[in-house]
Amino acid sequence: MSTSFSAWPELTLIALSLILLSFMVFGLDKKKWDPKGKHVYITGGSQGLGLALAKILVKKGANISIVARTQSKLDDALKELEALRISPEQSFQAFPFSLTSASASSEALAAVTAGHNEFPDAIFCCAGASKPMFLVEMGEAELENGMRDGYWVQAWTAWAAVKEMARRGQKGKIILVSSTLGFMSFVGYSSYSPAKHALRALAECLRSEGMLYGITTHIFFPPTMYTPGFDEENKTKPAITRKIESTDEGLTAVQAAEGLFKGVESGDFHITADLITSLFRASTRGCSPRTNALFDSVLDIVAWIGVPIWRRSVDKQIVAHREEHTTYLMQAGFFESST
Amino acid sequence: MSTSFSAWPELTLIALSLILLSFMVFGLDKKKWDPKGKHVYITGGSQGLGLALAKILVKKGANISIVARTQSKLDDALKELEALRISPEQSFQAFPFSLTSASASSEALAAVTAGHNEFPDAIFCCAGASKPMFLVEMGEAELENGMRDGYWVQAWTAWAAVKEMARRGQKGKIILVSSTLGFMSFVGYSSYSPAKHALRALAECLRSEGMLYGITTHIFFPPTMYTPGFDEENKTKPAITRKIESTDEGLTAVQAAEGLFKGVESGDFHITADLITSLFRASTRGCSPRTNALFDSVLDIVAWIGVPIWRRSVDKQIVAHREEHTTYLMQAGFFESST
Repeated sequence: MSTSFSAWPELTLIALSLILLSFMVFGLDKKKWDPKGKHVYITGGSQGLGLALAKILVKKGANISIVARTQSKLDDALKELEALRISPEQSFQAFPFSLTSASASSEALAAVTAGHNEFPDAIFCCAGASKPMFLVEMGEAELENGMRDGYWVQAWTAWAAVKEMARRGQKGKIILVSSTLGFMSFVGYSSYSPAKHALRALAECLRSEGMLYGITTHIFFPPTMYTPGFDEENKTKPAITRKIESTDEGLTAVQAAEGLFKGVESGDFHITADLITSLFRASTRGCSPRTNALFDSVLDIVAWIGVPIWRRSVDKQIVAHREEHTTYLMQAGFFESST
Repeated sequence: MSTSFSAWPELTLIALSLILLSFMVFGLDKKKWDPKGKHVYITGGSQGLGLALAKILVKKGANISIVARTQSKLDDALKELEALRISPEQSFQAFPFSLTSASASSEALAAVTAGHNEFPDAIFCCAGASKPMFLVEMGEAELENGMRDGYWVQAWTAWAAVKEMARRGQKGKIILVSSTLGFMSFVGYSSYSPAKHALRALAECLRSEGMLYGITTHIFFPPTMYTPGFDEENKTKPAITRKIESTDEGLTAVQAAEGLFKGVESGDFHITADLITSLFRASTRGCSPRTNALFDSVLDIVAWIGVPIWRRSVDKQIVAHREEHTTYLMQAGFFESST
């Protein structure tokens, strides 16, 4: 998902034209991460963002381990990776695990390590799913599953990894995948957005505690991505949520994966790949390291002016939707149900 | 918890002197919330912030329902509230519930409503607990309990309330209690801070969806509070976490409750009661409504300069702590354990 600022061509222009200047001043001399010959573990690696990222890394010469729930999808993904191999030394492996429990996440990490005879140098937690709904229509299970599929599915892998890395004295990278909805939220995302905000906090703790063990943490905040997961979430998405998002252009999985890789390569902590999420990143920075102090400040100023205007327009849309919503709830039998 | 900026007397002075100006320009003409005669439900109301808030509301003429786990503490709290009664019409009631499950939270809300023969006009979710530890020392249970005691203990009440309010066509207020650690985080808080960030997101969804039902949402971000909960969390708090927080002055439960009440009275969405958390609020605003556009901008500028300086000093402290930490982990048997 994300949000539209299409009404501000001027602000966008100012921001974009200042990007060039800020890149000229900062951000050109960082040492880049090179995945060549590295063992990279990608959860959710059989489709969408995870698979697109795996393909980029294969082309850079990395050894890849992917984990996802479905064996057949993993088999297909491995074939795609094989086709992109750039060296006979590269190895690709896949294991079927559902990563929503602590034990399965630890087992998956152990399987990946044993299969490659090497602990991963970088772990990309790309697994996750969203089921947008009205909070009043959610049962206990929907709220709990939102946290499970948005937070725990990555947190357990990060937890298992940091413990094992601390024990082994193994340095490396842990990368989480949040969402634009890890910076802000609105109607429809009360099971998903809390999970994505929680990931943001976990990344901040990992970045801090990880310094004790030589672990580097990154977190990616993608907007709407046109992936199998997006088709799935559209099945339950409320009309008003869809309307608020309607002018968001989104990214393909390939574009998002390129943005994620570029951010990790450059050593950024908070990684964004589209202008709108970058505006939220800059205006929701807290104590997170900035990507580029000058550019981020420009973004912050643009957000300072634009975001409140956008929010008020969204609030108006929601208030205007009241009557239609009441009709919807009546037709859905909400007022007759007891819990 | 929170953090120290005691090294910036100049910035603090600039911020404080601009508060006056900004209050003169904005924020003087809002219609205030009056709890007199209202039914106010407070979770975690037997001690700490919840009890301090209940006392303020009793003195304002509200009818109070409190829920907490321990009957004896509830009995003591009721006696304290009785002593502050300003009218014979005021009614005070208490029910023992552990609010960490959806069903208990729904039952508690039903009991409170039946006992008072009226659905609450305002629901303050003050229940919660924190257990700071190193992530590498946490087991599965510690991480899950962090989410339970930091997030679900409030989320289930909010969920039960919004469903019931939508069904009844009942307007009113839902107030969540996050933490400075809902805006930022660092070593030691990887079970607590994700929960407090998740509450922030839930509040943003509630604010948005609540407009469909005439529900107003607020969320409070207190710093370190000197309460029974604080004594409890200090039992497991890592030395480095304690050191990072050491110069934070914190608030008493009474000061925090006064700040919370004042924010709700004024209709603020994000409520803070200390300067440091206000700096994080302004620099982590995203699309949340600002309390005071001018004052918050001053805070944002102060944070823009000061927070990165603070973060670098914290990062340095953590890196300098590496050797001591390794020794600590060795003595704790970490390197011999298997999970």
